Amino acid sequence: MAEEKLPTRAEDFSEWYNQLVLKAQLADYAPVRGCMIVRPYGWALWENIQAALDKRFKATGHQNVAFPLLIPKSFIEKEKHHVEGFSPELAVVTIGGGEELAEPLILRPTSETIIGHMWSKWIQSYRDLPVLMNQWNSVIRWELRTKLFLRTLEFYWQEGHTAHATRQEAVDETLQMLNVYTDFAVNEAAIPVIPGVKSDAEKFAGADTTYSLEAMMGDQKALQFCTSHFLGQNFAQAFEVKYLDQTGVLQHCWTTSWGLSTRVIGAIIMVHGDDQGLIMPPRIAPIQVVIVPIYKTDEEKASVQKTAKDLKAQLVKANLRVHLDEREGFSPGWKFNDWEMRGVPPKMSPSNQPCWPGAIVPAGKAKSAPRWPTSQPQSKNCLWEFTSRSSTRPWPSGAPTLKRPPPMTS
Amino acid sequence: MAEEKLPTRAEDFSEWYNQLVLKAQLADYAPVRGCMIVRPYGWALWENIQAALDKRFKATGHQNVAFPLLIPKSFIEKEKHHVEGFSPELAVVTIGGGEELAEPLILRPTSETIIGHMWSKWIQSYRDLPVLMNQWNSVIRWELRTKLFLRTLEFYWQEGHTAHATRQEAVDETLQMLNVYTDFAVNEAAIPVIPGVKSDAEKFAGADTTYSLEAMMGDQKALQFCTSHFLGQNFAQAFEVKYLDQTGVLQHCWTTSWGLSTRVIGAIIMVHGDDQGLIMPPRIAPIQVVIVPIYKTDEEKASVQKTAKDLKAQLVKANLRVHLDEREGFSPGWKFNDWEMRGVPPKMSPSNQPCWPGAIVPAGKAKSAPRWPTSQPQSKNCLWEFTSRSSTRPWPSGAPTLKRPPPMTS
Repeated sequence: MAEEKLPTRAEDFSEWYNQLVLKAQLADYAPVRGCMIVRPYGWALWENIQAALDKRFKATGHQNVAFPLLIPKSFIEKEKHHVEGFSPELAVVTIGGGEELAEPLILRPTSETIIGHMWSKWIQSYRDLPVLMNQWNSVIRWELRTKLFLRTLEFYWQEGHTAHATRQEAVDETLQMLNVYTDFAVNEAAIPVIPGVKSDAEKFAGADTTYSLEAMMGDQKALQFCTSHFLGQNFAQAFEVKYLDQTGVLQHCWTTSWGLSTRVIGAIIMVHGDDQGLIMPPRIAPIQVVIVPIYKTDEEKASVQKTAKDLKAQLVKANLRVHLDEREGFSPGWKFNDWEMRGVPPKMSPSNQPCWPGAIVPAGKAKSAPRWPTSQPQSKNCLWEFTSRSSTRPWPSGAPTLKRPPPMTS
Repeated sequence: MAEEKLPTRAEDFSEWYNQLVLKAQLADYAPVRGCMIVRPYGWALWENIQAALDKRFKATGHQNVAFPLLIPKSFIEKEKHHVEGFSPELAVVTIGGGEELAEPLILRPTSETIIGHMWSKWIQSYRDLPVLMNQWNSVIRWELRTKLFLRTLEFYWQEGHTAHATRQEAVDETLQMLNVYTDFAVNEAAIPVIPGVKSDAEKFAGADTTYSLEAMMGDQKALQFCTSHFLGQNFAQAFEVKYLDQTGVLQHCWTTSWGLSTRVIGAIIMVHGDDQGLIMPPRIAPIQVVIVPIYKTDEEKASVQKTAKDLKAQLVKANLRVHLDEREGFSPGWKFNDWEMRGVPPKMSPSNQPCWPGAIVPAGKAKSAPRWPTSQPQSKNCLWEFTSRSSTRPWPSGAPTLKRPPPMTS
């Protein structure tokens, strides 16, 4: 793995990215064009992203649900802009159980339509509002030019969907979720982001206003980090999502939707990575500390392995995600290069050398870096501090949170 | 909701089940025949099931991954028994991005084939084994007779997939996972299960041996709780999953797969439920304690609400999943009936009555049950104890864990 050198970012940023995703075993190409397989190291990162976001969604009152993958084709045609935007990207099921279907089914490209359909049954009164939902799933969009994590036919994401009694409440929700994403970007992914409003040509098909966070990648290009849509009454009118207000008058709801996808993994690679490989943001890193035992003789091996296991137990106890690399047939140097390429924040190497029992090798550039002994590897604070010091980019101290709503475009 | 009475189980068990799933808002029928929407209360239960299983899978060394939904149709045809078993149940995508596809794609009914295909690329040497993977996703099987949670066209599950160097290792894995499921069934879902081997006619299409756990429902009928398959070398041969052993000889791997689905929610309903409604197993209950404030005057309302909020904060601090029912326009009696139907283990009602500030009403049969005051509602142990005492079924104390592998059928 680590032997074949990556191209530098300056030589070919796009090829550096493609090779790194494969070499670090984050993902691989699936047999179906444009689809990807997310491998254990990539999925563990996604699970940490999910956990960090999910607790924020729940803290703001949202509940998770699951709407089906299969949607009647007629649903997509009910909202004028939605059908224009999504029709060219649809995958269509025409055969089920060996028989041609009377009405073709589409694979969800997003779930506004089926959710609108169900809300029209569930929502009757102002007492039923607001409805605050989110779901974690995958969606299918028939993209022509694809790239692992950044644009794939099937991708993983969350889609939040909310319904409100008033326009103001829905606008507030749209902006609240943009702030939740900002908090996640800065404090978990360590990525500075800039909020903004999409142009009419770029906004979500069916939205009144689309807000997004944009981040700058290592090649100085912008990448859309996530979006939050104020949908006005567009879907509520198309699907007759109505409620009786306190005065007994039937009103259409105001709705929102907001999403963040596995594309964020692409952003993490492109913002933090350097010519040696990945640099994982410590708080969501799949492996926060890797332990590489160093020994020469069999006698040394037994004692170093014991030290390594004890060290691991201490770090696990401190709630760190630790991996002990016990692979046989690979030299410590090879392992260090491998973990450097895979971006694990600190690497520790218990050995029989002077700095035994615990030597920490900083994340960046193993060869030139100092080693220093630590008698308290179990100290989480110390490790965190170390981690942020050793990162090639400083942990952002401020965040461009939205204090005031930007001007609405409608 | 709670006003319309359920049929009793004795009258019509099947209709009791259907109505209860809808009334308790666990799930609803989707617009596509045989598909379901899992609503917040049902999905929260599934998330707790997932968490309880996922930590057991990780503790036994498995890593989560994500393989795509779309599989080339030709893949399913590579294993003789697999194609025979699954062909009648397939959903087929024939159109993508507005164009007819050169090769139709199937929606995964299960992932052995695409995983076999990728393993043939990833696995080269004995050093790469064992491979221990799991994924949480949904699969599509074109079922004709469907019932919410028990049999749906799309259902949610986990599918574990492992590859091993020897037959014995794969057999051990198959049985280990059956034991993991047993531990979950007994200690989390509070459902006694019986392990067994499926007949040749009933086993998984492509397996050498299928083990299952069976549980007895409230109508005295058996339900398959989960399955664990020893796949022999069937898929390894069909997809050429081979490794170089220590002596330099090329060998086929031995593989397993094992799964547990949202059907388990059906089992929880049918095992624990009674004529009043659901009874949730406390450890995975979406809501473990509900607080229903009781007051008559506005003055009482303010003080009771404050007590209720304090109580909730105390219980949340004790890591309990607590819901404070502040709905306006519903009487406490109506709320008690509603939560009884939805099976929340203990219900607490702070009020200005003698047992103020904290009265616990047991889960079962509110009217005849004693109320007793507690000055320490924050005591988790006390609540758990109470919960298990108040359950209409005692918490199973023993478990039919597999001590020895049952005889293999091949």
